[in-house]
Amino acid sequence: MFDRVHVIGRGRVGSAVAARLGERSLAVSADDPGLVLLCVPDAAIAALARELAPGPWVAHVSGATPLAALDPHQRRFSVHPLQTFTRQRGAEQLDGAWAAITAESEEALATARWLAETLGLRPFELADDDRLLYHAGAVVASNYLVTLERAAAQLAEAAGAPPEALVPLIERTIENGFQLTGPISRGDWATVEAHKQAIRAARPELEHLYETLAGATAMLA
Amino acid sequence: MFDRVHVIGRGRVGSAVAARLGERSLAVSADDPGLVLLCVPDAAIAALARELAPGPWVAHVSGATPLAALDPHQRRFSVHPLQTFTRQRGAEQLDGAWAAITAESEEALATARWLAETLGLRPFELADDDRLLYHAGAVVASNYLVTLERAAAQLAEAAGAPPEALVPLIERTIENGFQLTGPISRGDWATVEAHKQAIRAARPELEHLYETLAGATAMLA
Repeated sequence: MFDRVHVIGRGRVGSAVAARLGERSLAVSADDPGLVLLCVPDAAIAALARELAPGPWVAHVSGATPLAALDPHQRRFSVHPLQTFTRQRGAEQLDGAWAAITAESEEALATARWLAETLGLRPFELADDDRLLYHAGAVVASNYLVTLERAAAQLAEAAGAPPEALVPLIERTIENGFQLTGPISRGDWATVEAHKQAIRAARPELEHLYETLAGATAMLA
Repeated sequence: MFDRVHVIGRGRVGSAVAARLGERSLAVSADDPGLVLLCVPDAAIAALARELAPGPWVAHVSGATPLAALDPHQRRFSVHPLQTFTRQRGAEQLDGAWAAITAESEEALATARWLAETLGLRPFELADDDRLLYHAGAVVASNYLVTLERAAAQLAEAAGAPPEALVPLIERTIENGFQLTGPISRGDWATVEAHKQAIRAARPELEHLYETLAGATAMLA
């Protein structure tokens, strides 16, 4: 669909995307590109889009940012890789991940799907108005899992247990398809209350988090 | 150390434990056992222990329950497999998991370590007084991960996105060693605020959970 793509930004996502396009024998170049792909922080997208010369397609890879941030360009779309990226890995980080594609015409959707599939992503359509809600879900699933692990590790450490012992437990929770086990699944609120007292004594700053998660667990079970 | 172990309880944990002992050529039998292993709900341990004839070692596999629940037996200990179990799997669920061992003498610790290693677990010592705090950490790491996934899936579904698309994201978050990415890692609180507004409009019952996790993420980062 395009021979030349200009990738602006070489952060965690931009680096992986540019590497993958190179693997697919696409020229990653600012010289007469068919597509300009903005891999910059959300807050920088709108100003950068306004500076771009009209002509090529323009797209961004942000999860939360609406297409209007790409004004005044009309041939535009978004491809958001639903993945967390690190500089310690390369293009293979894209493999197996899904991608939200958002566009305003059939032609733009087809272009977005082409880019997602070229990157090795599994695209699904997402309405522009639903991007924030979708992205909030992604933050809960990824960023807040980091928070859970840190909180759990602090409790384990405070108890003198090795925090790395939690990792097989976390992995199996996923492998078992997120089956709920433990005290709340058994209706054992006495243990939950005892947990809260133990946390209050040792790590009081974590009690509110524990209590909120206990309530949400009961609500979502 | 023992030839015969009496496993009481065939719930998720007791079934896996009994199967593993059988694989190790130990007799799982109520007939003159060297060890009685209680794999029953926490609330049932103390009453059951009081009914047991004195003589054999007595142990439980509970995470939160103190050794005093095994009164009046003195040759006693606990081995808590730090894992989530399902009836859809067997003894292999124990492989690679850690286990908290708690005991009051060197002999009892050695016995607990023998049992843990016989089961295929990696034992670490845990003080009796620290069991509740440790178990609270396990609940955060496993049960509350289930809650996170359910909340994230509800937000994705409300946005029209396939909830299964979150799974590669969750898996990679672990593989990347729980590196924090996303808006809070960038100090982008405008996006966090926009997420909250989107959640309030679509799934108001999840806003408090989102907000609490955002605050904990900033605190633990």
